[in-house]
Amino acid sequence: MDKINLAEAFSRINEFWSPQIAGELNGQQLRLAKLKGEFVWHHHENEDELFLVIRGRLIIHLRDKDVELREGEFFIVPRGVEHQPESPGEAWVVLFEPAETLNTGNLENERTKRNLGHI
Amino acid sequence: MDKINLAEAFSRINEFWSPQIAGELNGQQLRLAKLKGEFVWHHHENEDELFLVIRGRLIIHLRDKDVELREGEFFIVPRGVEHQPESPGEAWVVLFEPAETLNTGNLENERTKRNLGHI
Repeated sequence: MDKINLAEAFSRINEFWSPQIAGELNGQQLRLAKLKGEFVWHHHENEDELFLVIRGRLIIHLRDKDVELREGEFFIVPRGVEHQPESPGEAWVVLFEPAETLNTGNLENERTKRNLGHI
Repeated sequence: MDKINLAEAFSRINEFWSPQIAGELNGQQLRLAKLKGEFVWHHHENEDELFLVIRGRLIIHLRDKDVELREGEFFIVPRGVEHQPESPGEAWVVLFEPAETLNTGNLENERTKRNLGHI
């Protein structure tokens, strides 16, 4: 494997809400996603999910509070906790989660992405 | 859990080569470490290890090449691969690895850190 430059890798992503695999280790994946607008409310039954903002602003709505992340900030959504990511502008986000994690968690709908590409 | 601001968390680390736990998920840990100078050659028998540079410059010496990382760049050292991290100046590095990963891998010596603190 070679090193990855995050800014360069993000610059090659053209689709919003379509995580790309940037690295795999210990059964986990580091995924890169460009986010814009609102995603769907969902939860992951068995997986904790880490969001690290590289650029822009991300709001993670939880049922009891909102968590606002800016560049260089991260938050872990514990398994089972409902959340709705939202980026009012555009955000570049690193996700760290198990390889089997589905982006829409407990839901399967038109926002679901399977067979993620490698960036 | 609350969000973590990486720059703020790093600013509270006073010791080099002493990883601090900033997050735990799925049996993995996100650790923050300030690195300066050379570490020891070692490998991790069963764990892949991710290095993401937040500030400064990190060189990961491998037996067959050197990988140089600057801010916003990451590299995954696969399990079993000997490596020696070095930061000629000072580097702020995020590590993603299984919770059981020992910083000195197969070695146990004066650089070994157990019972890591939480930042």
